[in-house]
Amino acid sequence: METDSKLKTENSKLPNSKLKTPQLRYEIRLSGSGGQGLIFAGIILAEAAGIYDGRYVCQTQSYGPEARGGTSKAEVVISDEEIDYPKAIKPDLLLAMNQKSCDAYFFDLKPGGMLIVDSTFVKQLPTTKAIAIPFTRIAREKLGKEMGANIVALGALAVLSGAVSLSSLEAAVMSKIAGGTEDFNRKALEAGIESAMNALKMKAELENYEDSSDQ
Amino acid sequence: METDSKLKTENSKLPNSKLKTPQLRYEIRLSGSGGQGLIFAGIILAEAAGIYDGRYVCQTQSYGPEARGGTSKAEVVISDEEIDYPKAIKPDLLLAMNQKSCDAYFFDLKPGGMLIVDSTFVKQLPTTKAIAIPFTRIAREKLGKEMGANIVALGALAVLSGAVSLSSLEAAVMSKIAGGTEDFNRKALEAGIESAMNALKMKAELENYEDSSDQ
Repeated sequence: METDSKLKTENSKLPNSKLKTPQLRYEIRLSGSGGQGLIFAGIILAEAAGIYDGRYVCQTQSYGPEARGGTSKAEVVISDEEIDYPKAIKPDLLLAMNQKSCDAYFFDLKPGGMLIVDSTFVKQLPTTKAIAIPFTRIAREKLGKEMGANIVALGALAVLSGAVSLSSLEAAVMSKIAGGTEDFNRKALEAGIESAMNALKMKAELENYEDSSDQ
Repeated sequence: METDSKLKTENSKLPNSKLKTPQLRYEIRLSGSGGQGLIFAGIILAEAAGIYDGRYVCQTQSYGPEARGGTSKAEVVISDEEIDYPKAIKPDLLLAMNQKSCDAYFFDLKPGGMLIVDSTFVKQLPTTKAIAIPFTRIAREKLGKEMGANIVALGALAVLSGAVSLSSLEAAVMSKIAGGTEDFNRKALEAGIESAMNALKMKAELENYEDSSDQ
């Protein structure tokens, strides 16, 4: 058995190997308005991947002289190797929690990258491939407070990207939140996971429909 | 008057000008154990410099597979220009809130850089030039809670380094803390500012003493 797995590892390093290699570097940008808790979400995501999943992670916030403008941006780079450059160069995943950040950052996305938007606020989608989930409306309706929307979004993002494991995400959320809000935040995560499952189901149905209408 | 100030600006750009030019890039590393609130402190510092002082700022946390070990590190790079590389290469300032982080990071410090330690926990100083202030003891004695030590340290750091203005630091603290803790955090900042003033005074007295004993 051991020989087998060694072989696999060696094979996967061959330049013309067809085996799927683990993705070395995955770049995530979380964006929205100042009050939407995206820096906090970035830290949770980074701790989930770094402390609980045991990978290399850099989490960055950048501010320029224009920072009073009200858009907020947090970046998380996850890698299986030590990270040399900690900022997102071409994000693999963009979460846009408002229209302004969606407009500002969509064109930075890597070709084939994933765009997830909060459809409560993002009404004009720059691509039909965007995954639109009303995180803020879900937080309002299922949790009674809009301020859980960032945690709802994290739950969905974990399901849709696989960038962090759900158990690590839960552990990181529980370690960072204020005491007494565990139930609220667990519900927020669950609502996010459910919303992503629904989005994936709808997408699959749509693709099936499109496939059958092609014939 | 306008011509005067224009001249000054132009002069300061001449390669052999003796005028003091603003420091372009200033790197700060905040380090300690996991529960000391250093990531939160890093975010506050970054927002103070970026949003309120209007400078370019990058704030980074890095985690590796060793991240469960319990040391925590947050970095803030402040610049007058857009920041190309957001991690601290050779910190100008190291805040070490425990012995382990002091030992681990002291040798990264830029020659002539500033080391500030929490002398509640750092008992072995790697240099006589370290500025030792008992942030945690101050928080316990003046605020009744050790958990304000990170804000006490920020107040001191701002005075000692001049990296952010005190008014911007206060604004950033007030914007990030939980509602209802304004008084506690304002007191923490004031205690930190006072502790830094005392440290500077003691240092000046010591230097005077050393000077006079040289003669």
